[in-house]
Amino acid sequence: MTLPAALLDQLSAIFGDRLSLAAPVREQHGRDESYHPGSPPDAVAFALSTTEVAAAVTACAAHKVPVIAFGTGTSLEGHVAALRGGLCIDLMGMNHVVAVRPEDMDVTVQPGVTRKQLNEYIRDTGLFFPIDPGADASLGGMAATRASGTNAVRYGTMKDNVLALEVVLADGRVIRTGGRARKSSAGYDLTRLMVGSEGTLGIITELTLKLYGIPEAISAAVCPFPSVEAAINTVILTIQSGIPVARVEFLDAVMVEAVNRYSKTAHALAPTLFFEFHGSPAAVAEQAEKVGAIAAEFGASDFQWATGPEDRNRLWAARHSAYWAALALRPGCKGWTTDACVPISRLAECILETKADLDASPLICAIVGHVGDGNFHVVELVDPTNPLEVAEAERLNKRVVARALAMDGTCTGEHGVGYGKMGYLAAEFGEALDVMRAVKRALDPDGIMNPGKVVG
Amino acid sequence: MTLPAALLDQLSAIFGDRLSLAAPVREQHGRDESYHPGSPPDAVAFALSTTEVAAAVTACAAHKVPVIAFGTGTSLEGHVAALRGGLCIDLMGMNHVVAVRPEDMDVTVQPGVTRKQLNEYIRDTGLFFPIDPGADASLGGMAATRASGTNAVRYGTMKDNVLALEVVLADGRVIRTGGRARKSSAGYDLTRLMVGSEGTLGIITELTLKLYGIPEAISAAVCPFPSVEAAINTVILTIQSGIPVARVEFLDAVMVEAVNRYSKTAHALAPTLFFEFHGSPAAVAEQAEKVGAIAAEFGASDFQWATGPEDRNRLWAARHSAYWAALALRPGCKGWTTDACVPISRLAECILETKADLDASPLICAIVGHVGDGNFHVVELVDPTNPLEVAEAERLNKRVVARALAMDGTCTGEHGVGYGKMGYLAAEFGEALDVMRAVKRALDPDGIMNPGKVVG
Repeated sequence: MTLPAALLDQLSAIFGDRLSLAAPVREQHGRDESYHPGSPPDAVAFALSTTEVAAAVTACAAHKVPVIAFGTGTSLEGHVAALRGGLCIDLMGMNHVVAVRPEDMDVTVQPGVTRKQLNEYIRDTGLFFPIDPGADASLGGMAATRASGTNAVRYGTMKDNVLALEVVLADGRVIRTGGRARKSSAGYDLTRLMVGSEGTLGIITELTLKLYGIPEAISAAVCPFPSVEAAINTVILTIQSGIPVARVEFLDAVMVEAVNRYSKTAHALAPTLFFEFHGSPAAVAEQAEKVGAIAAEFGASDFQWATGPEDRNRLWAARHSAYWAALALRPGCKGWTTDACVPISRLAECILETKADLDASPLICAIVGHVGDGNFHVVELVDPTNPLEVAEAERLNKRVVARALAMDGTCTGEHGVGYGKMGYLAAEFGEALDVMRAVKRALDPDGIMNPGKVVG
Repeated sequence: MTLPAALLDQLSAIFGDRLSLAAPVREQHGRDESYHPGSPPDAVAFALSTTEVAAAVTACAAHKVPVIAFGTGTSLEGHVAALRGGLCIDLMGMNHVVAVRPEDMDVTVQPGVTRKQLNEYIRDTGLFFPIDPGADASLGGMAATRASGTNAVRYGTMKDNVLALEVVLADGRVIRTGGRARKSSAGYDLTRLMVGSEGTLGIITELTLKLYGIPEAISAAVCPFPSVEAAINTVILTIQSGIPVARVEFLDAVMVEAVNRYSKTAHALAPTLFFEFHGSPAAVAEQAEKVGAIAAEFGASDFQWATGPEDRNRLWAARHSAYWAALALRPGCKGWTTDACVPISRLAECILETKADLDASPLICAIVGHVGDGNFHVVELVDPTNPLEVAEAERLNKRVVARALAMDGTCTGEHGVGYGKMGYLAAEFGEALDVMRAVKRALDPDGIMNPGKVVG
């Protein structure tokens, strides 16, 4: 579709030269970092204020034209593809930290502020925002997709760390979902309803987030294990023992090799855990000692410690590059990334069965995961022009999801639904999916907010 | 209203002699423990299964007759009053622990299981469920009201500790809101939408909850302070320092006197904090030492430690009796309880201004609160037959709420809305209240689920 001339006039009046119809701009705003085919919007508006977003949505609503919010474009399930055309609103110009309140350990930001930008900004307060999905994503996008990542085992996900949102609704109204009290029993939890709704119920234009004190002491370690099972069982027992580990990441041997090549590290080619501990010096030492004892029970002992900030940063930079490292194993390929999460007691079984699937597949596949939550990813390297490979990747993906659901888990621990995982929601939720659709219809009766995503 | 004969026949067929029309049963099921006038339902059904609840709701839906869920009746804002008559479904017969999974640290229960019953049941697993609103409430009711209480500062509220729900919807359909994965980005967060919806969107018929390891070490302490300000500033600095205190409760001198009389304790008649610390022995000692140093900065030093379980139980039993202790200060009165929550930096100011209001009032009033969250209650003792006293209690209540909202807080930190706080939601949420109403209409178009509550 192309946008009606009257609407284009209205949008031009709002955004001036910050409205673009240029093909490269539209292409770039219609795709994410995944294998999912993109779909360009008809126009891209670069918003600078809530007022502009509200005016744009109001104008689009009058013409029943789709509206898609865009942040850093780092999502992985086709979240930003403009499947039915329409207006993409790029929010990265709304990148101001509105208020930092160290005394309440909270902060209010515009949606285009990225997590690294925020942590840079508040560095002198002694506080930090812990949610870290790897990519330097925008905080609005992280809330919209209910992101989490490495620190979630200790600090929770976006669901747990958003205090309140400002949201532009499908009819252009602007609401605030709450205040700054740390808890409230007042009314329906619209904050949590909007977190994870992927722009299908409204566009987040401001966020108030929890902050945490930078731990007095931090230490990190890498430890190879004799088997996948030994590594995962170490994680399970660590979690079951209530040790408040801040991060515990699993990399299978394929992923370790990819990381070594890409990040010039020299980790042993074995199933490996990356750990991080936060707390007082005594607490960190105590946690590390307990985890060391558990790992030893499962046959691992070669803990390599990274206590200095530089060593630690190198370690986590390598972990964060895992996706690109995997892609580099097969230049020119695309990464088909799956994301599942199961109850911790089923994690060893789930990963072992998955690993057996992958070993039997002709595709190169690597496993990496935030295993303290029972969450893991498989990166399948495919040539997107080869239908056989794409079919094989899809087959493996389906098996991962089916296995997770059979184990009372979820089809996506943190990447979200977009249009890539939409087909699995019926299996996961049954009738509850109809309730989601009823909520969608109530808040967006004309279906203009990021159509074709989440609930279809 | 009285129920249509055809509906009564259907309900009799479902419940047999577990359907009651007796006036005393109806009266008891139409009121909670608060000052709010009750309103009896037309009938009370004692359900034993989800199937029965679903059948009853289906039958009521066909006749557009209200349905109100009932647990222990310990709510405080008129939540269970059958304002428009209808059927009350008492869920206390659904009191089975369905599954305990120590290896995943979760549990599935029916809604009539109370928190004490659950903790008794799982005692041998080394795990516990921390949410503790004082009353031995049903877990279904606690989820429905988004309850929290003394431990929330460390363990969060019901919002943070429900993994998934089974819910009977307004049309009798039964949904499950999720699986048992510790995190998920799959679809809208129906779990959090139902938690705190007070039976207005559906009836909770099963809950899967997070459990926690019983701390290796626990210690508790009582400490009197030279002033309200000194006590609250100690709390603020404790929280701002990131000390993971498990409980920190404030009692003003009036409340301490009430507790002393009622529970035969001998605490100094001064603004007082009750603390509890959880962790390893070393961590508990470290936390206690840090808090002791902070309290000393504000002029308090007389920490009385309760390290043994009996001493601790006596301490918390006294704290939990605070409401009844306050009532006993003036036999025959009713307690008008308010509940507000503000950002921690405003807590001293909020409580001091409130205290000044109370001191200037002819009513006897006491303050008690879960101050680590910025949450506090005022118990105003009124003769409900004296309109002047009722008007004065209402005036004080309004000032507490207005003050909390002006400080970016909430009109209810944990008691919920019921019909008592309904009038404040517009001030707190503005347009967002319309969104709540749209959600309500979408899920309950005929308005039969606990009508007249939360969103009106």
